[in-house]
Amino acid sequence: VLSLLAIEGLPRIHRDDDLASLLTHALGRDNPWREGDVVVIAQKIVSKAEGRVTRLEDIRPSPAAAALAEQTEKDPRLVELILSESRAVVRARPGLIIVEDRRGFICANAGIDRSNVEQDEPGEWVALLPEDPDASARRIRDRIHELTGISVGVVINDSHGRAFREGTVGVAIGLAGVPALADRRGDADLTGFVLQHTVIGIADEIAAAASILMGPAAEGVPAVLVRGLILPDIEGSARELQRDREKDLFR
Amino acid sequence: VLSLLAIEGLPRIHRDDDLASLLTHALGRDNPWREGDVVVIAQKIVSKAEGRVTRLEDIRPSPAAAALAEQTEKDPRLVELILSESRAVVRARPGLIIVEDRRGFICANAGIDRSNVEQDEPGEWVALLPEDPDASARRIRDRIHELTGISVGVVINDSHGRAFREGTVGVAIGLAGVPALADRRGDADLTGFVLQHTVIGIADEIAAAASILMGPAAEGVPAVLVRGLILPDIEGSARELQRDREKDLFR
Repeated sequence: VLSLLAIEGLPRIHRDDDLASLLTHALGRDNPWREGDVVVIAQKIVSKAEGRVTRLEDIRPSPAAAALAEQTEKDPRLVELILSESRAVVRARPGLIIVEDRRGFICANAGIDRSNVEQDEPGEWVALLPEDPDASARRIRDRIHELTGISVGVVINDSHGRAFREGTVGVAIGLAGVPALADRRGDADLTGFVLQHTVIGIADEIAAAASILMGPAAEGVPAVLVRGLILPDIEGSARELQRDREKDLFR
Repeated sequence: VLSLLAIEGLPRIHRDDDLASLLTHALGRDNPWREGDVVVIAQKIVSKAEGRVTRLEDIRPSPAAAALAEQTEKDPRLVELILSESRAVVRARPGLIIVEDRRGFICANAGIDRSNVEQDEPGEWVALLPEDPDASARRIRDRIHELTGISVGVVINDSHGRAFREGTVGVAIGLAGVPALADRRGDADLTGFVLQHTVIGIADEIAAAASILMGPAAEGVPAVLVRGLILPDIEGSARELQRDREKDLFR
């Protein structure tokens, strides 16, 4: 049995908060971490703990941002941030900017989001993605081990839209102690047929599963404990989930 | 707590098998269906129960199939089947054919798969997608209700590749008694910010979660019981997960 438990009761997250400690505390003494647990953490609270929030009032749009903002009917200050967080604009139309972000993710608005980013100072705050989400996951994993002696896998997830399909789904943008992909090429099926194309995006499936409990914009449930996974002991990186530009048929 | 239980011990599935009855029996008396349960069933066994299998030896490729087979270095008989199950070829290159299938899904090989399709007669058997996966899900839901008096949600899932990201993930291709999308547009977040773009592909997240336990090509675990979902009481269709061609930026 695979079980997913919403980790509730976390306080509002501020810059420099120790997420590993807060998560450990929120689980409580009755339900401590176990070896093999995976914790899925919403990008939003990781960004807030890392101080990756900024105020639109403080942004001065470049001429390029102003032009793209006009084309897409978006706030020029937000577009300035999107461009500064991106390598390339993949698609743009009114209401939508899809980029390849600085970390290599193809996503809307470079993952920048206005919801649930309240801060003590007033203003229109937005959250940017962590600078290096794999490193963020690694720090949380290491810190949980330091606090408790237990090695848990960490997945940082975000909600992405998709080509061809309606609706956002949770995807993995940072990993530690969890494989990104499960490669079954060369294995035989039950009838002896050798699987030829089967590489499973296992970390994305875990991220999507946790997202069921998180709801939109991680309202109230910014972390989920996943217990009962049987995973190969492979150290993954969310970058393995990014298809190389040359191999992608849909840019 | 959301729990996912692999439904094991199903026999090999043959044409006209009563999947609802087999699943009910496999769960056993100790763990009967409960109201609100969702069962995720791998497309492969639905196809087999519906007789949606065919033998490559019996297929005669058309000239168009032969040409596409040469371009993509695939078996011309398989390509004939792919074309007969498709509305349009979206991308083709050596080793890969991505189509819009007859049901509207953008997927490789029109969802046709060779793994775990053993039949009593020898030959190179392949499984096609169910003719109408929503209708398949509906029949299974209705039959479980007939047998037990319990209304369970049914999701038929398959593994799809994706634009931009490596690895396949489980997606919903048929639904009954489960919403496809959870539309949160207009709801306020915890800070009062009104969500503007949040439509969640909830059925795909459920399909992906179950896929974690299924493994590639549904080896050994062709169905998963999902218990503890809190879903709006909306009757969904997997077609709602298909983005209209005119709205899609990546065709």
